Amino acid sequence: MKNEENNKALLMHEKWNGKLEIVSKAPVKSREDLAVAYTPGVAEPCKVIAKDQEAAYKYTMKSNTVAVISDGSAVLGLGNIGPHAAMPVMEGKAVLFKEFGGINAIPICLDTQDTEEIIKAVTWLAPAFGGINLEDISAPRCFEIEERLKATLDIPVFHDDQHGTAIVVLAGIINGLKVVGKQKEDCKVVINGAGSAGVAIAKLLLTYGFTNVLLCDKAGILSKSTENLNWMQEEMTKVTNLANETGTLADALKGADIFVGVSAPNIVTSEMVASMNQDAILFPMANPVPEIMPDVAKAAGARVVGTGRSDFPNQINNVVAFPGIFKGALEGRATGITEEMKLAAAIAIAGLVPEDMLNENNIMPEAFDPKVVEAVANAVKSHIR
Amino acid sequence: MKNEENNKALLMHEKWNGKLEIVSKAPVKSREDLAVAYTPGVAEPCKVIAKDQEAAYKYTMKSNTVAVISDGSAVLGLGNIGPHAAMPVMEGKAVLFKEFGGINAIPICLDTQDTEEIIKAVTWLAPAFGGINLEDISAPRCFEIEERLKATLDIPVFHDDQHGTAIVVLAGIINGLKVVGKQKEDCKVVINGAGSAGVAIAKLLLTYGFTNVLLCDKAGILSKSTENLNWMQEEMTKVTNLANETGTLADALKGADIFVGVSAPNIVTSEMVASMNQDAILFPMANPVPEIMPDVAKAAGARVVGTGRSDFPNQINNVVAFPGIFKGALEGRATGITEEMKLAAAIAIAGLVPEDMLNENNIMPEAFDPKVVEAVANAVKSHIR
Repeated sequence: MKNEENNKALLMHEKWNGKLEIVSKAPVKSREDLAVAYTPGVAEPCKVIAKDQEAAYKYTMKSNTVAVISDGSAVLGLGNIGPHAAMPVMEGKAVLFKEFGGINAIPICLDTQDTEEIIKAVTWLAPAFGGINLEDISAPRCFEIEERLKATLDIPVFHDDQHGTAIVVLAGIINGLKVVGKQKEDCKVVINGAGSAGVAIAKLLLTYGFTNVLLCDKAGILSKSTENLNWMQEEMTKVTNLANETGTLADALKGADIFVGVSAPNIVTSEMVASMNQDAILFPMANPVPEIMPDVAKAAGARVVGTGRSDFPNQINNVVAFPGIFKGALEGRATGITEEMKLAAAIAIAGLVPEDMLNENNIMPEAFDPKVVEAVANAVKSHIR
Repeated sequence: MKNEENNKALLMHEKWNGKLEIVSKAPVKSREDLAVAYTPGVAEPCKVIAKDQEAAYKYTMKSNTVAVISDGSAVLGLGNIGPHAAMPVMEGKAVLFKEFGGINAIPICLDTQDTEEIIKAVTWLAPAFGGINLEDISAPRCFEIEERLKATLDIPVFHDDQHGTAIVVLAGIINGLKVVGKQKEDCKVVINGAGSAGVAIAKLLLTYGFTNVLLCDKAGILSKSTENLNWMQEEMTKVTNLANETGTLADALKGADIFVGVSAPNIVTSEMVASMNQDAILFPMANPVPEIMPDVAKAAGARVVGTGRSDFPNQINNVVAFPGIFKGALEGRATGITEEMKLAAAIAIAGLVPEDMLNENNIMPEAFDPKVVEAVANAVKSHIR
């Protein structure tokens, strides 16, 4: 069955031969058409933009076009497969931008994995675009690349693996807490995986008001005494794990209320879940095989379980976030995506599940519900300064 | 009337708000669709390409997608208007790629005009593309940028302002010579404008077999003693003007058989035309106002006159060349556009005007004739090694 699905995906990709098509909105069936869409008529918008760069939003595709940029260094669970092999994913992301957000997205896979070169490349190609979605760039380079581009570009720059993931996780946790009747101030949160997603999730949870957050990775709990941390992980030891705990993931989970996994398959055991606090919330999101299977986690005492998969309840899926984030930012002409926008987006996503529908198996809105993108876009727009 | 047309172009550009749209060929109406076009299914083509980069042509849009890249330094007759203001032209070019060639083209306007940086930018963003169309980059930087990219990239790189123009000019001259009954070996050719187009036209005419070619610019005939030439113009003095003539454009035109203008309005006089050889062929192609108006040239004795404009006979328009050039190169998986391909394309374009239809006012095929792109593509494909 699994093989059959894989074969279907391969066959369909061959049939599509590229999942995107560039089509013209301007007819060119006659010389008159040509004179309007191309020379000599096209000189008119050029002249206006040359005088006033802002007019690019009026006369070109910039206002509704996003670049989806990767260097192929951390693609899905496949790792560093390079720019050519990353293209099917970036095309897929562009498909989602269009189908869920109505946004034109152009996949760009860069033939360099050098931080400085990626920053230069994105800076140089920015004029045509209204926003930059960074994708599947490995940590810790992704942090510096995003921060420096945000500081210099006048259009939104958003690393979806970080912030899209953090937003949907926070949305799920907000609703999970309602189901179990706990307050964020009382919760111990354990995040396993201290890469781009794990770091961003920790940051956003802290911003939202959680205070007791532990980040773990293969070597266990990140603390001020952990060795071989990258610069961002070192930063994180200043704001997480305030009690300076040390130990393994199993140690971290003792008494924890919430577990978020962005790591590897099958590394959480029934015993670990049993050691957590009552009414535990678990988001084991490793793909395609989660850190612990939902039925196993439930049997061990978990109350709310969400995964990255569509074949279990409570799918925690970025697609409910990034299309609306960019739609709101583009429509509102935001120059960046702020912490306030991310929080508002998470709260809006959580709010889409009506209180009377909320239960252990229904904490996330349906990805295909068109209300999702509108709610997220409006949340973002309401926080544009 | 002129103002009315300009206003229409501006209004239509505002209505379009970008002349291109990116659409999905992959449906995503259900979770099952998502699992094929995006995760987890998308991992399959990624894995195949990671093992065999060639498979990118099978599973991604690379096989039929071209980047239209400019730095906004030499846009139409508007000059150095920068990357934002260049966008309407690059979008227009992409429209023509699609409408005339069925090719997906993505406009990229770079926020740098440094030769080394442009070369780096194009190199880094190449993986997603099956070809690179350079556009509106000023001379002499355009020569080095194209040459170095051709040397290192494994996909076709083509500066249309150079080679597209040269191909259509050669096509027009081939048919013009048939009309006037002259042989290329006997003709003196004067090209005014020693920028990207003028240089490329001179080169292609020499390759085709013309021997007596003079390049002129504002300072007159380019000769070995001309000062302040750029490196490419210096190169050209070694292969053009073998008699080492000096003087003005007027001097050059005395006894000339063919004039090609890629320069400025109204700089050729009736007297100059009258000083040319009998049955002179003139292509005054400055836009929108040619070097000499066709009726004036004819009255002064010219036999065949072609311009860049659609409202006079014999429009010399790149659109009959570049869509077919790239279509042939992409379909045939050419790694570059060779001199043989350019010659073959010019001969194919000329051949589209049947001998019995050929006359002073009909030397070029109709741009909207669908046979044009096929003939050019086939000519290119037949020269892929």
